[in-house]
Amino acid sequence: MVKQIDAIMKPKSIAVIGASTKPKTIGSEIMQRLRDYKFNGNIYPVNPKGGIIEGFQAYTSINEVPGEVDLAVIVVNAKFVLDTIDQCHEKGIKGICIITAGFKETGKEGAELEKQLLEKIRSYGMRCVGPNCLGVLNTDDNIRMDATFAESLPVKGDIGFVSQSGALGGGILNILKDLNLGFAQFVSIGNQADINAETMLEYWENDDEVKQILLYMESIQNPANFRKLASRITKKKPILALKAGRSAAGASAASSHTGSLAGADKAADALLKQSGVIREFSLKNLFSNAKAFSNCPIPQGNRVAIITNSGGPGIMATDAVCESGMQMAKLSDATKDKLRSFLPAAASVKNPVDMIASAPIEHYKQTLETVIADENVDMIAVIYLPFLGLADIDVAEALMEIKAKNPQKPILGVFMTKSEFFTKIANMNVNMPFYMYAEEAAEAMTRLDRQRQWMNRPEGKFPVYDVDRAKAAEVIKKSLSEGRAQLTTLESIDVLNAYGIRACKYGLATNVDEAANVANNIGYPVVMKITSKTISHKTDVGGVIVGIQSEEHLRQEYAALIERLKERNILDGLEGVIVQEMVKGNREMVCGIATDPQYGPMMMFGLGGVFIETMKDVTFRIAPLSDVDAEEMIKSVKAYELLKGARGTTPAQIDQIQETLLRLSQLVTDFPFIDELDINPLLISEKTGEGIAVDGRIKVRMNEAQEKLGSCCDCCSCNG
Amino acid sequence: MVKQIDAIMKPKSIAVIGASTKPKTIGSEIMQRLRDYKFNGNIYPVNPKGGIIEGFQAYTSINEVPGEVDLAVIVVNAKFVLDTIDQCHEKGIKGICIITAGFKETGKEGAELEKQLLEKIRSYGMRCVGPNCLGVLNTDDNIRMDATFAESLPVKGDIGFVSQSGALGGGILNILKDLNLGFAQFVSIGNQADINAETMLEYWENDDEVKQILLYMESIQNPANFRKLASRITKKKPILALKAGRSAAGASAASSHTGSLAGADKAADALLKQSGVIREFSLKNLFSNAKAFSNCPIPQGNRVAIITNSGGPGIMATDAVCESGMQMAKLSDATKDKLRSFLPAAASVKNPVDMIASAPIEHYKQTLETVIADENVDMIAVIYLPFLGLADIDVAEALMEIKAKNPQKPILGVFMTKSEFFTKIANMNVNMPFYMYAEEAAEAMTRLDRQRQWMNRPEGKFPVYDVDRAKAAEVIKKSLSEGRAQLTTLESIDVLNAYGIRACKYGLATNVDEAANVANNIGYPVVMKITSKTISHKTDVGGVIVGIQSEEHLRQEYAALIERLKERNILDGLEGVIVQEMVKGNREMVCGIATDPQYGPMMMFGLGGVFIETMKDVTFRIAPLSDVDAEEMIKSVKAYELLKGARGTTPAQIDQIQETLLRLSQLVTDFPFIDELDINPLLISEKTGEGIAVDGRIKVRMNEAQEKLGSCCDCCSCNG
Repeated sequence: MVKQIDAIMKPKSIAVIGASTKPKTIGSEIMQRLRDYKFNGNIYPVNPKGGIIEGFQAYTSINEVPGEVDLAVIVVNAKFVLDTIDQCHEKGIKGICIITAGFKETGKEGAELEKQLLEKIRSYGMRCVGPNCLGVLNTDDNIRMDATFAESLPVKGDIGFVSQSGALGGGILNILKDLNLGFAQFVSIGNQADINAETMLEYWENDDEVKQILLYMESIQNPANFRKLASRITKKKPILALKAGRSAAGASAASSHTGSLAGADKAADALLKQSGVIREFSLKNLFSNAKAFSNCPIPQGNRVAIITNSGGPGIMATDAVCESGMQMAKLSDATKDKLRSFLPAAASVKNPVDMIASAPIEHYKQTLETVIADENVDMIAVIYLPFLGLADIDVAEALMEIKAKNPQKPILGVFMTKSEFFTKIANMNVNMPFYMYAEEAAEAMTRLDRQRQWMNRPEGKFPVYDVDRAKAAEVIKKSLSEGRAQLTTLESIDVLNAYGIRACKYGLATNVDEAANVANNIGYPVVMKITSKTISHKTDVGGVIVGIQSEEHLRQEYAALIERLKERNILDGLEGVIVQEMVKGNREMVCGIATDPQYGPMMMFGLGGVFIETMKDVTFRIAPLSDVDAEEMIKSVKAYELLKGARGTTPAQIDQIQETLLRLSQLVTDFPFIDELDINPLLISEKTGEGIAVDGRIKVRMNEAQEKLGSCCDCCSCNG
Repeated sequence: MVKQIDAIMKPKSIAVIGASTKPKTIGSEIMQRLRDYKFNGNIYPVNPKGGIIEGFQAYTSINEVPGEVDLAVIVVNAKFVLDTIDQCHEKGIKGICIITAGFKETGKEGAELEKQLLEKIRSYGMRCVGPNCLGVLNTDDNIRMDATFAESLPVKGDIGFVSQSGALGGGILNILKDLNLGFAQFVSIGNQADINAETMLEYWENDDEVKQILLYMESIQNPANFRKLASRITKKKPILALKAGRSAAGASAASSHTGSLAGADKAADALLKQSGVIREFSLKNLFSNAKAFSNCPIPQGNRVAIITNSGGPGIMATDAVCESGMQMAKLSDATKDKLRSFLPAAASVKNPVDMIASAPIEHYKQTLETVIADENVDMIAVIYLPFLGLADIDVAEALMEIKAKNPQKPILGVFMTKSEFFTKIANMNVNMPFYMYAEEAAEAMTRLDRQRQWMNRPEGKFPVYDVDRAKAAEVIKKSLSEGRAQLTTLESIDVLNAYGIRACKYGLATNVDEAANVANNIGYPVVMKITSKTISHKTDVGGVIVGIQSEEHLRQEYAALIERLKERNILDGLEGVIVQEMVKGNREMVCGIATDPQYGPMMMFGLGGVFIETMKDVTFRIAPLSDVDAEEMIKSVKAYELLKGARGTTPAQIDQIQETLLRLSQLVTDFPFIDELDINPLLISEKTGEGIAVDGRIKVRMNEAQEKLGSCCDCCSCNG
């Protein structure tokens, strides 16, 4: 694969098919930019009229081009694209970038055209960017390819950028130039008929020129593959993603945009989290935080020191650091003594270190050096506010000098100064990021810290438990055979039991001796409920008896029950009684499975009972879950505090709850046609701390289930 | 008051006492800026050496100054300040601005000096800005006073700005100049010995030059006064405030900064909310949102239309609008038809309106005009991304032209273009705000909408209920007389009862007939608990009996109870039994009172029971509460959904709960020495929907309570 993508991203020769001399057309702009950015290879414009285009000899067809061609950039009208692809194939071209619009994004006909296009691409062994895109670029000095039609020429840097929106890509190129955020490579994937974000992730995995990857996505094409790739690559280099189409309204805008299916945001969020991708919610933050990754090492911890020449911004920075969940570093006594030795008496040598307004450059340098040396400090934000005659740029240069000698810790500048400063900085070779506001620096530090946490996070295992898969299949088949997509509560509990999930114990009994037997096996207290073909409201006839404490008590209650039914003349329909374990506990959690049309089965965990919808204290992850995923789910909800055993309650068995989630994950992996599964409540037993499924509800997708289970042999132990 | 502050903010003559010829000193910088900004009156430098300073004749003392002086700007060393004030008094000067540092912020001695300073100021009938500040400015063409020492000269505009941090003020002046955000007036209040934010609020209330007020605060000096003023003024013009020192660590930095006491953030947040002040959490947002108020009318609603030439940013804007709680406008069919008549087929005429990348300026104009005319639209964000040959500034000018003809609705520009555009715009006379990112525009629209909501919010009444104040005083006095700051549960309930707060009914009984009587009065079911001098763990001896259903049942249980105690030989200490109403309900709310050392009594309401600390679903307001405050409290917590009667529960009596909060507010207003009051749970009766105080806990501040109640006559109906 790499070779064909090399043909696109690192070509030695480019043909621009549809190159033009007409100004303000894409065919002219692309030629200009290839020329202006000084592409390091041959440029062959192709235009039926021939002639000279932007100083290059034009050819009337691609076949006439004299040399080998690695990449064909296609800007001809959509109706000519298929023929052009044929011609490219004849010429032996493997790399294609189709700028031309008029495909899937325009409706049914366009989608059909795109399908034919993709078939050709595949059959010819080509790889293709687009259609409907802004182009590609690579700033490597040996390549220098700008095959886009954005306004600005790119700045060289370490970012690999994938944009799903073409026009946005152009805006991004402008903005990043202003921010001095440089690209290594940029790909506008457009309709992503062939090459998509996943292709580029894999391509950049071992490319040392790309040190961080930025994604603008409106959809994720193959979530499982994305997860596999991203969770591996994020261990080596950060991936920051802006996934748009979060709101229902936004998602509907997405589907009318590049014709992509909008993913449910909960699922996308879970997927990105599990993949170690840092999700950003605005372009501003995406760029602001990328700036930190470009100029900072990954820190060793989250203890932040702040150095300032003005109290107010020091307070604001402290607020931002604390609110983001990082810690204010506790400076050592040695550090404080040293600071005190040169700072004036009015200065504060505690963190935030306030050097006071009159601090000269020398104080900035000495203070920073002293604070860097403190072992209790992992990251440092240095704040500058203008004060009589102290020039911002001089302070910045002094800081960068210290930073150059101390590359091991992230140092961020907060310069509340004129925008001219940032323009100046944008044209310099900086070794640390500079921000206008303390909050931006604090946010960037949280991202550095999150990357640290992810890199330290254990890989995670996908345990396989010894379960009774055949039994579960049998229960589901029975329900299917009766035409029910929705399993009964007892069937659901049987399935959970088959997968070793601790569910409320129960048994059916048709007489008092059987009932006593069941109850004795379960252990007291128990609940006894009638099951009858004729009685629908059990409680109305006293058909539910709770708190049965002993066999004797059970026998009394059973007799009394029969008597009541006899009196009312409704004994006939009685099939028996269900004797059920009575679980005591007042902490109701919930766990379950939901299916997202695009992302597949998704696990949920959180606070259950009446609070589910009100408090929304739940979290989602895509199945299958690793043990680390399951642990993080449990610890990420607020109700985790309740599980730990607040206010004298029994601490919950966190391990057992974690196993419950993992077993559920195994269940839905084995039976992927499970559409919904709810365990609500998962009651935390006050006696043992176990999470016990008191109620269960499973629904399958009928057709899919029948297809899979129907072909199954009777023993039900196959993979179906 | 206005007159003396006029002397400071609108002086006809200024003396700079401590003016200097030495470069890079404050005494020189202030003179330069007064000159450079072309102050519209007389400038009198005062320096013992005399001579010429920045082209003005200097005087060796203030007495020598020939004309009248309105404002004295003092930059002499702190030790000379008191004498200088005396001299200013002799000269008849009423307006003082002390730049000099070395007062309260430096410790005890400085605080003493500041105290003496304030005494002088007061006794001389002067008003004073500072000490330890950056100065004051007024951009009115008739005044043109820049008496600060910031880097940049100010831009004229409509903002009144109060900054509590001097150095920060300097940074702010720089930044605002870059953003083209103009000031009407700016005051750096420094240590706010005399003039503080409240003074300036009142001063600007009816000043037509000041159309919005921005505050940077680290503390609020007189919260009650601030609330009174701000809640009145915000009905006329927006107040945006950044209150720093939110985190515990930030607050500790605050107290070491300008020597001010840091307020607890919960209280500050409540106060700002109740006062209609728009709270911002970063300078960036403060400025970004002020830009909208400078250039937009207050909208009629929260329905937003988005116009874009690029799908991606349209989606991002939609996400931002929906997530911020605003609505995406539903364009009328007429609007859609009209848009369809001129936009290309590939365009989307639903909101967000995507004109597609190739949209010419004419489409921007026609689309904007069409959308403005739609009655379903309250606010409009117009997005521009660069596309072949369409110049950003031309689009901006076209939009401003339409805006000029249609001033009634807010229109915001989102221009994802080069920073040069913003530099250009900063030097133009714009009539709409321009942002780089969609999220910034969305946030600004939420602020406009919040101001609309506040202006439409009813004033709110402070109802006074008919309560038994004497009874409450009596109960508290009894507790005090026994040396207890903490009232017993029953005493607490008595106090609540005296204030008409629906508490769990109860009665004491010393024999079975009395117990039956009490129970009959309360109504069944009831709970019976022993009260004994010798038994501390009531439940261990079966001393708590729940679910008593009738008098007969009660008599049985009473007899059995006495029997049990006799058997155990512990009947002797028995004082009697408490018979208590048994309230059934599974919704536990909490309400109460906490006292903030700076902001005074603060009311709390939210989800109670075991969830208080885990879910933190509670809200705070400063007492006294208006009826609107109380209503907003109830509706602002997530648990409000539970109160409304989710999942088949009885809807709670919202009015009655509101009244409970208002009566509590009256209670703490009458007895301001109540330090803490907890009603947890306030159980929602499943039968009636009432909120019933099942438990109560009141704690008073001993000394304060004794002082107030001790002097009280026996009848306890006085105001003590």
